[in-house]
Amino acid sequence: MEGEPLSALCTPALVVDVDKVKTNAQRMIERCRKLGVQLRPHMKTHKTLEGADIMTAGSRRCIVVSTLAEASFYADHGFDDILYAYSLPFDKVERCAALSERLDLFQVLLDHPAALELLRKRPLSAGRHWHVWLKVDCGNGRAGVLHSEPAALSLAQAIAGAEGVELTGVYVHCGNTYTCKGVEQIQAVSREATSFTLQFMDKLKAVGISCKSSIGSTPSCSHPVPEMAELDELHPGNYIFYDVQQSLIGSCRLDDVAVRILTRVIGHCPHRDQLLVDCGWSGISLDGAGKLPTGYAVIEGHPELRLASMTQEHGRVEPLSGPLDYSQFPLGCLLALIPHHSCATAMMHPVYHVHSEGRLLGKWTPTRGW
Amino acid sequence: MEGEPLSALCTPALVVDVDKVKTNAQRMIERCRKLGVQLRPHMKTHKTLEGADIMTAGSRRCIVVSTLAEASFYADHGFDDILYAYSLPFDKVERCAALSERLDLFQVLLDHPAALELLRKRPLSAGRHWHVWLKVDCGNGRAGVLHSEPAALSLAQAIAGAEGVELTGVYVHCGNTYTCKGVEQIQAVSREATSFTLQFMDKLKAVGISCKSSIGSTPSCSHPVPEMAELDELHPGNYIFYDVQQSLIGSCRLDDVAVRILTRVIGHCPHRDQLLVDCGWSGISLDGAGKLPTGYAVIEGHPELRLASMTQEHGRVEPLSGPLDYSQFPLGCLLALIPHHSCATAMMHPVYHVHSEGRLLGKWTPTRGW
Repeated sequence: MEGEPLSALCTPALVVDVDKVKTNAQRMIERCRKLGVQLRPHMKTHKTLEGADIMTAGSRRCIVVSTLAEASFYADHGFDDILYAYSLPFDKVERCAALSERLDLFQVLLDHPAALELLRKRPLSAGRHWHVWLKVDCGNGRAGVLHSEPAALSLAQAIAGAEGVELTGVYVHCGNTYTCKGVEQIQAVSREATSFTLQFMDKLKAVGISCKSSIGSTPSCSHPVPEMAELDELHPGNYIFYDVQQSLIGSCRLDDVAVRILTRVIGHCPHRDQLLVDCGWSGISLDGAGKLPTGYAVIEGHPELRLASMTQEHGRVEPLSGPLDYSQFPLGCLLALIPHHSCATAMMHPVYHVHSEGRLLGKWTPTRGW
Repeated sequence: MEGEPLSALCTPALVVDVDKVKTNAQRMIERCRKLGVQLRPHMKTHKTLEGADIMTAGSRRCIVVSTLAEASFYADHGFDDILYAYSLPFDKVERCAALSERLDLFQVLLDHPAALELLRKRPLSAGRHWHVWLKVDCGNGRAGVLHSEPAALSLAQAIAGAEGVELTGVYVHCGNTYTCKGVEQIQAVSREATSFTLQFMDKLKAVGISCKSSIGSTPSCSHPVPEMAELDELHPGNYIFYDVQQSLIGSCRLDDVAVRILTRVIGHCPHRDQLLVDCGWSGISLDGAGKLPTGYAVIEGHPELRLASMTQEHGRVEPLSGPLDYSQFPLGCLLALIPHHSCATAMMHPVYHVHSEGRLLGKWTPTRGW
């Protein structure tokens, strides 16, 4: 279908504007270059080789992944320097060991002494050692040992002192930027997370430990504060696509969002003042419920419409007010949905259709599973 | 991994209790046999060959699908008599024609004169004709021409009278049973839908048209009313797995639910009185938000716990009240989540792990896409 217009696609279809992806990626590369920090892009949003090539500027080095399936997928395709940024799962130590023994640089993450104990019990072969990042919680409230707890420092010391193990870095996710509205709020949160991280690095230095520091989240890395220059790495991910949520947080403009779900009108329901479209939750996910005045998505070019509800393969679209003008929306016509959360939406699609200026270029196939 | 216990699986993992699936399927077969109606099981929940074989008792005939990808998948594997029960999409007419010309019996569905016009413009080769079901809305409020509107009868007459087209049946989905609580309410809704359907069939007879009638939805078919014996077919789908939602509606007991998401504890967060588990929305979907006191799932054997929130790869589990006893939940221990909606949960998994009495038997691989 190369060269054909987007209207040649069967719907629902996830379409990626490759020019916007490249611009978004290039801007992040520039931001990190100016700050003087290493960009380690996160793959979890798209999980494709092509997206990774754009984010790494073709180096196929220095990435973060959220699942071991992603790690294996990228390793199988020539990527290296891969950080599996997920609290070391007790069921996957052997798979992690295999990747550590096979790649030049496979890195794991942990936040509990019991996980360190598992690594010590499974020494790597061929003179290799485990590369371990310590996950520290600097206000996000999900995984990680609390930066303020003495346990954080003692775990870092235990990692640094363990045989067959190297403390590679301190990893912080400031996902608490997702509750922000606007650059000022984003920067307040990331300034705090950066400050906590740097204070923790100072504590490490004071006990003679030196290692890298890394902070991530698309909002914080889209508007970095100057203090982030003192970090070693940044690890954002969603910025390749962005989404409505990121535009509302203030990470990007709505125009920067690189993905759409194309959907077709498949029904007129004047007795309910609704259109039916062929995108249900199987095509866009249920993310964003209750968060947008326009429902589960922004319908491009139609601020007067709302994606009000969905079942597996159906979406109900209705006007925000007043009656629908059905002559504007004949059966079979296309609508483009801008997703609330591109990570969740991308997850629903076995293939992404890539275009430049509305002409199809090809397909990207993501990896799935764990 | 055949013969190994469920604990051998890496998590998150969707596991299917094949004995429960077989029991659920057999009960539906029996129900339809007793009513004297043809069962045409819907594939949309599981989308696997193995599930379809169990639901059709090995005949590989007489199924419903929700996407054309499912239709092609089943056709490619020897299934026939396939009804693509989705308002004929204008972008997929040629693919429908190809299936109609290739299979013994491929059937489409429509609810608008414009769709009929498309079929007339694309006559089938080799003396074949289009097999068309008319979708009628008998109270569900999604797709279909309203049973009470004169347009329903006139569209049926137009289909029956069109060259190259046969009116095969009248198709009704009583998804409005999903708002019911208990068998009495379910039966009131399905009695009404059945009555509307049969009244419509009488109108057809009065103008000399004879065709099949079919009603579906797992709640209505799990507790059929006697009047449904006057229909030709039933087309439920979710019953192969069932889920928490179906148990709350009253379609089944919680013990009949055949699927679980296995997840492992990956974090202890005593400062938040929470556990972290390795199932986020990528493993169970966001379906059910706000609907259960136990959050996004029922945690088997732990009525005191709630799956309170999720991000892509993390779930936060907390007690309904009081402090967590962490000694009960060591890092790495397994929890089993009973999903709110098995259709939505199954959609997140590239493979299902099938077991009998906790011993792994193999994998089922669903089809995806459209």
